[in-house]
Amino acid sequence: MNGLRGHISSAFDRDLEGIQAQIIKMGGLVEASIRDAARSLDTRDEELAERVRKGDSAIDALEEALNEEAARVIAIRAPTATDLRVVLSVMRMSANLERIGDLSKNMAKRTGVLVQMQAIGGTSSSIKRMAREVERMLKDALDSYIQRDEQLAIDVIERDNDIDQMYNTLFREFLTFMLEDPRNITACMHLHFIAKNIERMGDHVTAIAEQVVFLTSGRKPDEIRTKSDRTSTDPALSAALDDKGA
Amino acid sequence: MNGLRGHISSAFDRDLEGIQAQIIKMGGLVEASIRDAARSLDTRDEELAERVRKGDSAIDALEEALNEEAARVIAIRAPTATDLRVVLSVMRMSANLERIGDLSKNMAKRTGVLVQMQAIGGTSSSIKRMAREVERMLKDALDSYIQRDEQLAIDVIERDNDIDQMYNTLFREFLTFMLEDPRNITACMHLHFIAKNIERMGDHVTAIAEQVVFLTSGRKPDEIRTKSDRTSTDPALSAALDDKGA
Repeated sequence: MNGLRGHISSAFDRDLEGIQAQIIKMGGLVEASIRDAARSLDTRDEELAERVRKGDSAIDALEEALNEEAARVIAIRAPTATDLRVVLSVMRMSANLERIGDLSKNMAKRTGVLVQMQAIGGTSSSIKRMAREVERMLKDALDSYIQRDEQLAIDVIERDNDIDQMYNTLFREFLTFMLEDPRNITACMHLHFIAKNIERMGDHVTAIAEQVVFLTSGRKPDEIRTKSDRTSTDPALSAALDDKGA
Repeated sequence: MNGLRGHISSAFDRDLEGIQAQIIKMGGLVEASIRDAARSLDTRDEELAERVRKGDSAIDALEEALNEEAARVIAIRAPTATDLRVVLSVMRMSANLERIGDLSKNMAKRTGVLVQMQAIGGTSSSIKRMAREVERMLKDALDSYIQRDEQLAIDVIERDNDIDQMYNTLFREFLTFMLEDPRNITACMHLHFIAKNIERMGDHVTAIAEQVVFLTSGRKPDEIRTKSDRTSTDPALSAALDDKGA
């Protein structure tokens, strides 16, 4: 983590490196949490799901430690406006990581319920693919932060559109399966929750990447972002499916 | 907002009062946003829904201004550890308010879709009641902050259980309506989203109240909180309904 800043290393820099190391550690735990939650669903492994649920408290503890440390650094170093911005952005990133961890825990919680239900077409592997892509995006977002690589961060932001597309496709599939056979409804409601959770993870990863863009170039989210979750605004998308049930 | 702190007013106190005034203003906008989003759904008022969607940028702008101001205060006043904690907690509260505003905007987004669908039993008025209760909780959470009223904050945290109960009940109802008639599926999927959004608003209001408890007594969330959204963990809840469709 050297070479991040162009001037001679100060006490503040060393503190910042400590904070950044904590963010990376936290990021690693969150990546593992997404991976394990998705695997526990796919293989219906309740024990693994339980580990994910219990592991979330370690992520929460890291966020709290990180906030304490950031507050300490602000208090004793009284950083310049620019340095302060870096510390505040790290705090925002850790809040996003904590939220992703929560979503992952929520995902794992449903493993126990889904174990008792029939599989719904190929939706399980679609969900697994979606989770894997979010996990990769998170890894790249954290790398882009460490390397202050604006292009990689923008790349992550753009890939969130793919996640939104995957979610839109799954949403259609769940509707179709429910309309085809009412016995699919309960399982589809749970799977839909999970898909939506992963889609929201993508939003939080995007928020992390946006912080990186802001730190490297000063550009704000609305100058870079596009959005493509359309299920809430596109009546045609659901109306078409609604007709099938009529 | 006088009399909040027991010592002679300092430059820091005046800054803090300014920040608190901004939080209250932001809270007022978010309360109105919840109210209008719920009303737009209930009366199928697309124009009002559009105003809610557009109004969210004012909430986002306030959060940003508040963060800038908080960062400025930290930088120039170099507050003591205790004072710093107050400023950081205000930043967390504003992040929660911003998220509630987002959820309210998402709720309003679905008005346009639902206008084109049939009403689902009495679920619309249940949703309206749930939204009104969250709005009241938010008002009380902000009052508890201004008055440093720990008991009121704890009361808000406990009322979140009622919101979770309302959500659990609605979840059952949606499943039942979907099983009864597949033509209800699409509308129920959208209404379920909305109910889940309101339930999540309740969680963010709870997080605000938890900050108040922490500020007044130093107690942490896990020392005060209970949780009762059971749809993800209670297989019986969904299994019972699943049987009905078999």
